[in-house]
Amino acid sequence: MKKQKVIDKIKDNPLYPLRHSTEHVMHMAVESLFPGAKKVMGPPIENGFYGDFDYEGKITEEDFPKIEERMRDIVEANLPILMRDAGFKELKEIFKDNPFKLEMIGEIEKDGGNPTVCEIGNKEGRYYDIDLCAGNHTGRTSSIGAFKLLSVAGAYWHGDEKNKMLTRIYATVFETQEELDEYLEMIEKAKERDHRNIAKEMELFFMDDEVGQGLPLWMPNGAFVRHKAMEFAFNTYLERGYLPVTTPHIASEALWSHSGHLDFYKDAMYNSFGIEDEQYRLKPMNCPMHIKIYNHRPRSYKELPFRTAEMGTVYRYEKSGVLQGLTRVRGFTQDDGHIMCTEEQLHDELMEAMDLTMFVLKTFGFDDFEVNLSVRDPENKEKYIGGDKDWDKAEEGLKLVLKNFGFEDYITDVGGAVFYGPKIDIKVSDAIGRKWQLSTIQVDFNLPSKFNMTYIDNSGDQKTPFMIHRALLGSLERFMGVYIEHTNGAFPVWMCPLQVQIIPIGDKHIEYAQKVSEKLKEKNIRVKIDDRSETMQAKIRDAQMQKIPYMFIIGDKEIENNGVSVRLRTEENLGLKPLDEVIEKIEKMYLTKSLNLW
Amino acid sequence: MKKQKVIDKIKDNPLYPLRHSTEHVMHMAVESLFPGAKKVMGPPIENGFYGDFDYEGKITEEDFPKIEERMRDIVEANLPILMRDAGFKELKEIFKDNPFKLEMIGEIEKDGGNPTVCEIGNKEGRYYDIDLCAGNHTGRTSSIGAFKLLSVAGAYWHGDEKNKMLTRIYATVFETQEELDEYLEMIEKAKERDHRNIAKEMELFFMDDEVGQGLPLWMPNGAFVRHKAMEFAFNTYLERGYLPVTTPHIASEALWSHSGHLDFYKDAMYNSFGIEDEQYRLKPMNCPMHIKIYNHRPRSYKELPFRTAEMGTVYRYEKSGVLQGLTRVRGFTQDDGHIMCTEEQLHDELMEAMDLTMFVLKTFGFDDFEVNLSVRDPENKEKYIGGDKDWDKAEEGLKLVLKNFGFEDYITDVGGAVFYGPKIDIKVSDAIGRKWQLSTIQVDFNLPSKFNMTYIDNSGDQKTPFMIHRALLGSLERFMGVYIEHTNGAFPVWMCPLQVQIIPIGDKHIEYAQKVSEKLKEKNIRVKIDDRSETMQAKIRDAQMQKIPYMFIIGDKEIENNGVSVRLRTEENLGLKPLDEVIEKIEKMYLTKSLNLW
Repeated sequence: MKKQKVIDKIKDNPLYPLRHSTEHVMHMAVESLFPGAKKVMGPPIENGFYGDFDYEGKITEEDFPKIEERMRDIVEANLPILMRDAGFKELKEIFKDNPFKLEMIGEIEKDGGNPTVCEIGNKEGRYYDIDLCAGNHTGRTSSIGAFKLLSVAGAYWHGDEKNKMLTRIYATVFETQEELDEYLEMIEKAKERDHRNIAKEMELFFMDDEVGQGLPLWMPNGAFVRHKAMEFAFNTYLERGYLPVTTPHIASEALWSHSGHLDFYKDAMYNSFGIEDEQYRLKPMNCPMHIKIYNHRPRSYKELPFRTAEMGTVYRYEKSGVLQGLTRVRGFTQDDGHIMCTEEQLHDELMEAMDLTMFVLKTFGFDDFEVNLSVRDPENKEKYIGGDKDWDKAEEGLKLVLKNFGFEDYITDVGGAVFYGPKIDIKVSDAIGRKWQLSTIQVDFNLPSKFNMTYIDNSGDQKTPFMIHRALLGSLERFMGVYIEHTNGAFPVWMCPLQVQIIPIGDKHIEYAQKVSEKLKEKNIRVKIDDRSETMQAKIRDAQMQKIPYMFIIGDKEIENNGVSVRLRTEENLGLKPLDEVIEKIEKMYLTKSLNLW
Repeated sequence: MKKQKVIDKIKDNPLYPLRHSTEHVMHMAVESLFPGAKKVMGPPIENGFYGDFDYEGKITEEDFPKIEERMRDIVEANLPILMRDAGFKELKEIFKDNPFKLEMIGEIEKDGGNPTVCEIGNKEGRYYDIDLCAGNHTGRTSSIGAFKLLSVAGAYWHGDEKNKMLTRIYATVFETQEELDEYLEMIEKAKERDHRNIAKEMELFFMDDEVGQGLPLWMPNGAFVRHKAMEFAFNTYLERGYLPVTTPHIASEALWSHSGHLDFYKDAMYNSFGIEDEQYRLKPMNCPMHIKIYNHRPRSYKELPFRTAEMGTVYRYEKSGVLQGLTRVRGFTQDDGHIMCTEEQLHDELMEAMDLTMFVLKTFGFDDFEVNLSVRDPENKEKYIGGDKDWDKAEEGLKLVLKNFGFEDYITDVGGAVFYGPKIDIKVSDAIGRKWQLSTIQVDFNLPSKFNMTYIDNSGDQKTPFMIHRALLGSLERFMGVYIEHTNGAFPVWMCPLQVQIIPIGDKHIEYAQKVSEKLKEKNIRVKIDDRSETMQAKIRDAQMQKIPYMFIIGDKEIENNGVSVRLRTEENLGLKPLDEVIEKIEKMYLTKSLNLW
């Protein structure tokens, strides 16, 4: 049998006890350093933890060394961390000055819970803390590992701006200093690679308040690269037997009601607007429209698998507070496809979808994948559409494909399924080791019956097809966000708006530069001559900043030898090369979608 | 000086007196044949005229021969058609039994007008008619020409469904029988070519009530052809120096208010919907977003002309009653572009836009153009944004380009300008002689100042750029509607989803068919083998109906000779040809975007 991990990303993380214990230690340090500061709460989060305090004064990043020093003191004291049951009376006495804890205690009492506390050290010692806590710690403060405070921010109690503003300190912790350093280095690198900054430098995209938050406007350089990604994906799908379709961005509520989106997906949909006597909504998904195309006339088994492909722009609600660059937006284009097939074809179609995913992601240079299988939460079946038999069938189908495809160590996310079916999600590791979810392959046993999808099988009987949703790049916007960071803006040659910058050293070299430019254009290589009256060094610097793959320096020597001196955007200087050889090389890089420059 | 026509499409049509007089004769014929029928009104329209009657009985198309015979009788009687002034008292007496006419008379009286009547024949003669009329007729009934009644329908008085339903008869009339026959033949051809019927047969697109009216869903065949049109246009724009941009389909009302659309274009915009505390609307135009991209940072004169291009899908309100196939829809994709340039560049940029238009339209096979210049209505200046100086400058600029481009006989449409500026519209003649407006080139002196668009000129001064809007195919949807009818669904080889259908005569010919198919695929020719167990004749018929350009028939003889027998979708049989020659030929047709098949 295959190994399966069933995890809660935060609670089942092996670093949870470490993070949780360090959070207590941070609370202790802050309370001892800032008289009047009251600990409120603070859970472990994806890459560390945070702690909230109620404090009238101001805690800034400049206080971090002092707090960290006090934390190290508590660690060195090697205090035991112990859990025990506590009565409500005792708790109310302990926290009589802390209205936040009193509120939490009141809630546990109301729910009939049995409160527990965590005690660190003993009352007589130098450091002592008692806190309302559900447990899961390291045994002693000495084993909490290597930690670092990262940032401080304001946060409302319960996230509600009507409540009091608290002080929130973000921090992280690892078992060893080495791991911590590695993580801090990655954060540093990630900051340097922030796609919002790169996009600014390279003029890729921006947001505009008048247009609206979370709605990117793609500038020429960005629109070009995005278009290249889209063109490659779409043409690949057509070559692999998908049929192109094009559908509108709005539909009447009749459709969303029929599809179930108004019941199960309403929170992610924008409000309706009236056209004559009907209400319309922006589409959050393309599926119902692809189904309409399938359903347009009766289908025969001979037409199956029927695979649709559309670069479909959808609009989904995200709170303004969580919008972030291209990775969290309100409108995005999916490289969306739907496969309608017979039961016998399901396995092959899922295998083919996975193979296509690998091909597309690898073309972009991703080769390290993490696979997640998201299944239904059996405790909350009412959250999902569809019967048990269908769900079991779909989940088993996906597991079989993962096995056959050799993904042995995939992660099962119980409760992570979409309301209409289970799915496989594929994450890629980027150049600095972060993981990003891009591709998704989902089986759907719900919509086919909801829309009465049928086909006539080879004995003339009417049957219901299986349906697969798949998006390989996922959201073009999110993909671009990830890809900008992955490549640091140095896109592969085939995607670059400008592939060659020709830099004539002086005015007398411009004529030859033009001849070179013409030769490149004949081979469909995108080229520009930088004939500004700047120094060669300045021109090279500018081309480098724009991440143009090749710079051709042209002076007397190059003209004499019918060549060009080639510099790469990596700052590598290849020296004088015969022109024909260079053109042939670049053309090859371009046509083969190579990730290399030379 | 250049000749200029300033026309009202209906009133200034040379056929107006003919149409108007024939309408009177039709009224006379109906009143004399159907006792109790009361004439109501009926104007000349674009291709003829209609007449409304109040009649308790039913008039059907079966009555047309009888009515036409009576009309011919009146024509042969050669009655004079005379205009004269009339008093309100006299009129009220004449029309005392006709409440519709009495209402009209009452309105003229209220407005202080001087009513006139038209009398045909004299009271003592066999036929006599008197009607409230503003004039413009032929002199006698004998000169009304060749007419034909076309259809009958119900129509509400004043177009309001709360009013009485009247009987409306549509008809047409020409100076000669030959012209009438020509027109009737064109209507017949047009019916055969109705893109909605062709789209049904070829599975190109459809509308769905649940999705919503006027929102086409493109099926694989249609989406493919549309994609090819779009791809060709977009790549051409990039080759000609346009910069790609991509913008969202919605924007906050702040933008539409800033741009003036909420003041001057609101009727064509859909209702707003709220996102958090802002109201958003679907975009009816792309311009403000392209401006945002231009405005993203200060621009230098060195960056001008700055040309943006986007295949931008916009949504505009049309009443459900006027929606029609692809030619009148609620959402469509524009091949939209904006050119920001200096005053000195304006002429060249307009010339270049016109040249590009001609290149694109001619590639699709259009070569007969009608050019309209739409200028402001000087009597209704408040309908437009912008000052007199700007308008005069823009209108003169466009006239100069038309002159330089050699369009001598363009039509000036006074009052036809958009609220933000004057424009050139280009109509094409299709295969059966109908004219369709596709391309538009518009100068805009309004938005640049509204959005504070600037550039730094070569002396370091800040200036306002000129702005040109242009869409060459116009709306992709409308273009496709026109193009389906123009080509009768027989698209050029480069656009066809399937270029070659291979028809093996028997099962033993399938292996060779597969080899041929592989060879074609190597040359990127789109091919399918029809290996169904149908007769060759049935397979040929099916391929013909799908308008696949080439059919390759393969039997013993073809295999022996290493060739294929080629049939064209025109039913032309080219007989046995060597395979290599055929492939070379088709590849050439495809790559050169030839409109020919051989």
